[in-house]
Amino acid sequence: MTDPFVVIGGDAAGLSAASKYRRESPARDVVVFEQGSWVSYAHCGTPYFIKGDVEHLRDLQSLSPRDIEERGIDLRRDHEVTAIDTKSDVITVVNNGESFEYPYEELLIATGARAISAPIEGADLDTVFTLHGLPDATALRSFLTPPAEFDSANLGGGAALTTSVAEQYGAMQPPETIAIVGGGYVGVEMAEAFSAWDCAVHLFQRPERLLPAFGTAVGDAIASTLKKAGVTLHLNEEVERLTETDGQLDDIVYGGGNRLNVDAVLIGIGIRPNVELLTETSIELGTTGAVAVDEYGQTNVENVYAAGDVAELKQIVTGETTWSPLGLPANRAGRAIGATVGGSPTQVGHVAETAMLKAFELGCGRTGVLEHDRAEAAGFDPITKTITAGSRSGYYPGAEETTVTLTADQKSGQLLGGSLVGADRAAVRINTIATALGAGMTVGELEQQDLGYAPPFSPVWDPVLVAAKVLNGKL
Amino acid sequence: MTDPFVVIGGDAAGLSAASKYRRESPARDVVVFEQGSWVSYAHCGTPYFIKGDVEHLRDLQSLSPRDIEERGIDLRRDHEVTAIDTKSDVITVVNNGESFEYPYEELLIATGARAISAPIEGADLDTVFTLHGLPDATALRSFLTPPAEFDSANLGGGAALTTSVAEQYGAMQPPETIAIVGGGYVGVEMAEAFSAWDCAVHLFQRPERLLPAFGTAVGDAIASTLKKAGVTLHLNEEVERLTETDGQLDDIVYGGGNRLNVDAVLIGIGIRPNVELLTETSIELGTTGAVAVDEYGQTNVENVYAAGDVAELKQIVTGETTWSPLGLPANRAGRAIGATVGGSPTQVGHVAETAMLKAFELGCGRTGVLEHDRAEAAGFDPITKTITAGSRSGYYPGAEETTVTLTADQKSGQLLGGSLVGADRAAVRINTIATALGAGMTVGELEQQDLGYAPPFSPVWDPVLVAAKVLNGKL
Repeated sequence: MTDPFVVIGGDAAGLSAASKYRRESPARDVVVFEQGSWVSYAHCGTPYFIKGDVEHLRDLQSLSPRDIEERGIDLRRDHEVTAIDTKSDVITVVNNGESFEYPYEELLIATGARAISAPIEGADLDTVFTLHGLPDATALRSFLTPPAEFDSANLGGGAALTTSVAEQYGAMQPPETIAIVGGGYVGVEMAEAFSAWDCAVHLFQRPERLLPAFGTAVGDAIASTLKKAGVTLHLNEEVERLTETDGQLDDIVYGGGNRLNVDAVLIGIGIRPNVELLTETSIELGTTGAVAVDEYGQTNVENVYAAGDVAELKQIVTGETTWSPLGLPANRAGRAIGATVGGSPTQVGHVAETAMLKAFELGCGRTGVLEHDRAEAAGFDPITKTITAGSRSGYYPGAEETTVTLTADQKSGQLLGGSLVGADRAAVRINTIATALGAGMTVGELEQQDLGYAPPFSPVWDPVLVAAKVLNGKL
Repeated sequence: MTDPFVVIGGDAAGLSAASKYRRESPARDVVVFEQGSWVSYAHCGTPYFIKGDVEHLRDLQSLSPRDIEERGIDLRRDHEVTAIDTKSDVITVVNNGESFEYPYEELLIATGARAISAPIEGADLDTVFTLHGLPDATALRSFLTPPAEFDSANLGGGAALTTSVAEQYGAMQPPETIAIVGGGYVGVEMAEAFSAWDCAVHLFQRPERLLPAFGTAVGDAIASTLKKAGVTLHLNEEVERLTETDGQLDDIVYGGGNRLNVDAVLIGIGIRPNVELLTETSIELGTTGAVAVDEYGQTNVENVYAAGDVAELKQIVTGETTWSPLGLPANRAGRAIGATVGGSPTQVGHVAETAMLKAFELGCGRTGVLEHDRAEAAGFDPITKTITAGSRSGYYPGAEETTVTLTADQKSGQLLGGSLVGADRAAVRINTIATALGAGMTVGELEQQDLGYAPPFSPVWDPVLVAAKVLNGKL
């Protein structure tokens, strides 16, 4: 009897691997160590829980611990892995203050990522938040909820840590003015969530545009929608520090001494992979700072794998190594590693870095490589065009502008990336572009695709085809 | 000075060709002969005009005669072409009772299609309709509109024929009970339109399912939605005749003598290409009955082209010749022929037979080859799977079931076709499948596509990926 397949981390990648492995290989044990008490939760759903669109914290959990155990997975919550010995194939685990060793036959590192805070004075105050994980989400929702409506069972979800966080913030006076530092995914989604609680929202962004990864057309459209919704934008603006009185947040100081009195600050300036556990091991990191893996998700150590937000992947357009901490690649890589360890070698796949985002009434999407400097570094000669077309036939009620940007290589015509934004079913249209990218199509080939037409859903020439036609005409 | 480029038919294919030709080749004339008075109208929009979602008949016109003339196109409305002499390169045209000959250098036949009526007794009564073109649409909308709300200027659009039709039907008592014969596109869309006017709607369909081209899962979902909306379905039912008293419609007789008293009947059993003009010429038809063309839209006569609903095209999956009278292929082929005649040879492209349709709250789509007998005839060994998945993350409000069907070749794994149906942004997802088909992907390759995920728009595994995963697991 060999040792079990051991997984560190009970979220998307870890549990996908364990579940797939269990189905492929019923004979041998699979053990998942999770340092927290929550497993299998939808990280991307936290802004909607904070906003109140999702009522209970438990709704964000896609599998309960019981579901997981019923799948035949040995789940150990509140178990922190503190060391990995790749020579003896043993990990050190701490639970409830007790430390023990545990042997593995294969190991999957799926420790995820965490939000980084700003290196500024005041960032450690009680009402200065980051958002990554359920305790953060609970704290923010509880803080925003008026004391009369507060319900720690819903908002704390029944677990000890989140319930105590809920009680701490639920007892406080709700914030009226909130500053968001950072205009990426978290910043934009949380501007909507805070506005829903009638807070005055100020968003500070160091670059000159929101959502740089989505390109200028999307960034401009989102900025205009945020402003229309009452969010005050401070673009191209540096936040300097946060001031306090007796441990209570007072002002956000920015742009050479300007001050704004705020009740809370959310810092959404990025996340980093949780790789600290690997410092003392021979497991190598890649240039991005995440764990380097091969096409099967295997690290440089033969029986050690890594997947999800802690690991790198290959970019489908450039072939380069990238760190793209998103939900689908995490699930897919986990599942592939579960199959591989279970005896059916399966590649973890490439990423196009496809993403979608909602900002008030707008939906937007991006995929591939939009940035010219990045395309040039990969040997391409990029050209970009942006068009605006209707989402439905012009005469059909509900038609809205859809703005599509496509980038291609001028020499070969190869499609490199795209983004789009609009108020009527825009976001899902990114999948057309992502699929064309995945197929390695040229812009001319994309233009020839036989996409659907029906007045309530799409004009004769789908906005993506219009963009392909215009860009192809410039090649 | 050579003779002009002559186009017969002033709708999607004809005007796309004339417009593209004009831009490519400003020196030589392009003349469009249209037998009716309406040009450039959105045929697919007529159900929504009849329903009342589109207010004015003129809203369905995408370019006015003046717009067309301002493009430098010599447009001759109310000009019927009655003969083509391909030896002398001359056509015969009748306008206002006068006949004349007109020479061409190149000729485009874009005469479209027409609705076929049922070969049954009573099909020629005044309140028995087909739907193809603006006079039919005007008649139905005017008939449905209560006399007090009737406005012949809106509903007739200002043209003589449609205005006189509007006045004829606008004066009549609106129908209370309507029978639809045929459960394809027209039948399903018109069931929604008639229901919006509070008519009792009975839909008769000879096959056992609605919308056979969309597969059984879509047909069943649409049937259940129509029933829920109050439409009475008579599936697997033969209509025998319509009875009359003094020229007034009385009963629809079906299924061996059953009778239902109705005020109007809409016959939507299909359309046929308008090829009668070619009977006396050497221009050849294909096996489908539409005009046979090569990859540039050229007929067997060197300087004669055909495009749109009157012409065949190649199917992208099977390579076979098909007749797929839909809007995008008509526009695309017309545009390509305009470029070719203008000196830039451009292929008319393949069709995947992608289509979308709305039925009350449902949207559905289809693409490629779903029918097993058709796939087998093309040398494939087809397998089909249907799955149901959420349209958004399960915890996010507004998530609806999306049912996806995929068909693949068991030997190669090649994707052959797909369809889907659902109430939340389902229809536009067909474009993912159409693009994968266009790229010649296998189901395994489709499963690897990096599609977008965001709780308000899509679950982690897009329903199309779930379907690909399940079907790939069966190969």
